[in-house]
This record gives sequence, structure tokens and C-alpha cells, in this order.
Amino acid sequence: MALRHALAFDPIAVDDPRSDLAGTMRSFDPRSPIVQIGDLSAQRGDGVFESLGMVGRHAQEVSAHLARLAHSAALCDLPEPNLAQWREAISRVVVHAPETGESVLKLILSRGVDGAGAPTAWVTLADAPDSTAAREHGIRVVTLDRGYTADVPERAPWLLLGAKTLSYAVNMAAIREARRRGADDAVFLSSDGYVLEAPTASVILRRDGRYLTPEPAAGILHGTTQRSIFSYLGSLGVDTAYARITRDELRSADAAWVVSSIRLAAPIVQIDGEETARDAAMTASLNRYLLSPRD
Amino acid sequence: MALRHALAFDPIAVDDPRSDLAGTMRSFDPRSPIVQIGDLSAQRGDGVFESLGMVGRHAQEVSAHLARLAHSAALCDLPEPNLAQWREAISRVVVHAPETGESVLKLILSRGVDGAGAPTAWVTLADAPDSTAAREHGIRVVTLDRGYTADVPERAPWLLLGAKTLSYAVNMAAIREARRRGADDAVFLSSDGYVLEAPTASVILRRDGRYLTPEPAAGILHGTTQRSIFSYLGSLGVDTAYARITRDELRSADAAWVVSSIRLAAPIVQIDGEETARDAAMTASLNRYLLSPRD
Repeated sequence: MALRHALAFDPIAVDDPRSDLAGTMRSFDPRSPIVQIGDLSAQRGDGVFESLGMVGRHAQEVSAHLARLAHSAALCDLPEPNLAQWREAISRVVVHAPETGESVLKLILSRGVDGAGAPTAWVTLADAPDSTAAREHGIRVVTLDRGYTADVPERAPWLLLGAKTLSYAVNMAAIREARRRGADDAVFLSSDGYVLEAPTASVILRRDGRYLTPEPAAGILHGTTQRSIFSYLGSLGVDTAYARITRDELRSADAAWVVSSIRLAAPIVQIDGEETARDAAMTASLNRYLLSPRD
Repeated sequence: MALRHALAFDPIAVDDPRSDLAGTMRSFDPRSPIVQIGDLSAQRGDGVFESLGMVGRHAQEVSAHLARLAHSAALCDLPEPNLAQWREAISRVVVHAPETGESVLKLILSRGVDGAGAPTAWVTLADAPDSTAAREHGIRVVTLDRGYTADVPERAPWLLLGAKTLSYAVNMAAIREARRRGADDAVFLSSDGYVLEAPTASVILRRDGRYLTPEPAAGILHGTTQRSIFSYLGSLGVDTAYARITRDELRSADAAWVVSSIRLAAPIVQIDGEETARDAAMTASLNRYLLSPRD
């Protein structure tokens, strides 16, 4: 994913009185080096991030993503992000997007340069990869053990399971494992057999007319796209709920999707080599909604 | 840990015929930005690393660290490192260390800039933090659940549990949790109660004259310092072994240490608030050995 624009800034505290939020913001050609090798993002994946979809120059669900950035920062003992400053940074980057088509806006908050004691931050813009095939023809997934029982996140908060940290090597390894098995993506299961999430997406399924997604308490990210879809379904009078979902319930669902900010709603068409039920009309409806300006 | 020197280079393949291994190596003031924000080290902690201790201008255990770098790279599906090139890079950095005292040499191999399809690499040099207090007076540890049962690593290799990846956010969170509890460091336990490792170190203990360390199959890093100590103990005719070790066995050991390349052998003096047995003479002997030129 080639970057189109990058902006760097020094995060200021929530109660910083300065009115010039843009004071330290600098734009860069994203191919030029702008990160010190001593930055803890590069040294230890020690920071948090968000990826936002953009339609034209409109960034989707900014408030939900900023709220989650703040939540991730709190779980990682990072200074609370000044959201007004992040909104200012976003506003300076989105204007570099093409007027039509889809882009990816990424927010990165690092613990900063080792020893400096101050966080560092970037907002980047890239052209979105073409997700047409995944949205229209669906994706094949394999289930992979995430290694934890579903009750681990609550008793071991130092595992940061609800935070979207820069430490994403395992998520990438799971996708590589899925491709090795001839699939497109993975769905993580807890080691006691419950559906968790995809490495970079949430899982939604329909059973008996009701839409279900795994409960965030199981140490998964609370998906911004999943929440947006649930709110859309609610507005249509459709029933939605958080639940404990087994692999068998996922496989025998009336329809199932992995949903995320960039690829949007990708219908699952195969699980561990077995064909699964799908609903092309609902998929199209979800993606029309997700491509409309939101937030 | 302020950096003293940084060298960047483009990793070449193992079978690359070029004789000028240093062709792409560039030295930098480490405070200048030398990493692209699109680099997957900064974006997703997607890469592997090694930290080597240095005594004067001698880097310790270079072969063992390079072997582990290659092992980590293989687990992460990264291109096999050209070790001759890494040795060349190390030789160009170590000359910038002070002639006496301890330094830290760090090797970083990233999957590279997103979309570029080629890895990126750095070798950095920093002054070592002063570890005198930890070596002489010991450290207090708390045990923290790592969330996995001891058999998970074998059945779920995509969790990368034997690889030293740049995704270290959890390791750092565990150390912060230990400090919140009034301790200096953490010791991870498997969720079925076995001792694994410290977030940045290995655990060695002595029971009945025998030195034990947790078996690497339990998804822990095979510690270069632990291996070096076992080889030293072997040369003294002392019995060593890999074993499954419970928390109670650690607590009731004749003596125990967390050992790593930079802090070296730090005796454990307290576990979860309880004082533990120690052996000051052996600690001094281990650290004298670890500070002598090795490899």
C-alpha cells in the first residue's frame, strides 16, 4: 500500500492550553525517512493505531476511531490523546486524497523515541487496495487457534488484548498461514472454541434473522465497522446482539461476514474448506451503507 | 537509552554473489530520521531483532545472536539473513563504542516498506544502562500469566512464540504491571502454571546443586545468555538441564536468576512479595564470566 501523504506532529496533552494545535505539524513526502530508528514504534511495536476508510475526501467514523485510539492508549499507559489535535491533523491530511474513490487514513501514536519520554505521532494517507472481489465474490477463511481461553483477557490485562497496538506481527502471521492453506483470511478462535475476530476485521453472522458478533469482553477489538453496521441494522428494525459464538455456529449460520474499515463487508463463502451460506442482497446493502458518508 | 550510532542497509540474499557486502551501508546520526513511516517495523512491529551486549568494542556472542536472528526470520517468513553482511554491518558499528564500559548493539530486520517487497535493516549502538544494582542487590519479580498453556506454541506456530519479533508491546506492558506492583521485573507463567521467561530475559534456577531453565518448546526464546551460562557451568562440571518448572519450584529454589544480554545475571531476591534464597558468590562468578569476552 503505497503512501500518498504523511504528516508528523508532537502530541500535546489534553489540557495543553495552546490554541495553535497545528504548531508542530509537518507534512512530508511519505517516501522520505521521517521516523528515528530509536522510536519505540520501530523498536518494539510500542504504540497504538487506527485505520480509517475514506470515500473521496470524507473520512468515515472519525469519532469512533478517535474514541478507540484513546481507549487503546489508556490500556497501554500512553498519554491521553488530545482529540482536537488529532482532528486538526486529520483535516490537514484528508485534503490530499483524490476527490473520488477510496483511500486509507492511518493514525499512529507511538510511545516516542526511547529515552525521550514524549510520544510521537503520524497521520498517513494511502490509496485503498481494490476490495471489489472480496466484497462481491466473498472470501474463504480458515479458523486458527488464538491460544487463549475466552476468559484470559479479563484476568491478564497486560496482554493488551483489547488494544489496537502496533505489535501486529501475529496478525500478519495468521494471514500468511491462511494463504498457505489456500484461503484468503483467518478467523481466530479462543482455545476453548469460541469465535473471536479476524486478524484485521470483526466477524458478524446471521442466525434465524438475528445478527450476532462475538462479545468484546473476549479480548477482541470492538470493531468500528461492526458497530456502525449494528447501528444501521438497528435503524432498519433488525435484531442484533453480542454473543458467545462457537465455530459450528459460524459454519452453520444463514450468512456471515468479516467487516473492517477498508475492505468493508466481505461475505464468508468458505470456512476451513467447506462452502457456507451467503446472502448477496444483504452484502450489497451493507456495502452500499458502508460506502455512504458516515459519522 | 540514547543511541550513539546507527547504520542502515538493504539486506541482500544469502546467495547474492556481490563481494561488496557494504555497498548499501550508510552511517547516520541516530537522532536524524532514517526510517520511512511506511516501514512495517513502525507500522506493525513486523520484523525481528537481537540485542547484544558489548564490553569495550567487543560484541558478545555474535554467532549465537545471528543464529537466533535467522531462526526468528524463518519463523516470520522473512528472507534468510545474509550473515556475512550482518557481520560486516556489526564490524562497522562496534568501532563507534567507547573503548571501555558496556554498550548495547541492536540488530533490526524489518519486512520493509509496505508494498516495496524488500526488507530493511539497521544496526544501532547505545550506551548500556547501569545494571550494577540489579547484578549486586538483585531484583524483585512478580509472576504474571502469559495466557497460554505450555502446549500452545507447538500447535499454533502462527503465534510466533519462539521468534524475537519487533511486536514487543506486551513485554513492555508486563514490565509496567510489575512496577505497578512494586517489583522490578516480571516472570511469565503459562496459564497451566509453568515458568516461562521474563519479558526480556531467561530464568535460571538451582535445585539440589543442579541448574535448570524452562524448556524452549514452551514457546519461549532460547536465551543466548542462558545458553552461554549453561556452557560455562558445563565447563565447570556442574549439572544443567531443561525442565518444566512450576512457580512453587521457582520460589523454593536454592537460588534463581533472570539472565539477559545487557543486564546479565540479576539474582531474584523476591517473588510475588516473598523473599527468596540467593547465592551472592555464584552471582558474582556468573557476572565475571558474562563480562569476559565471549564467542
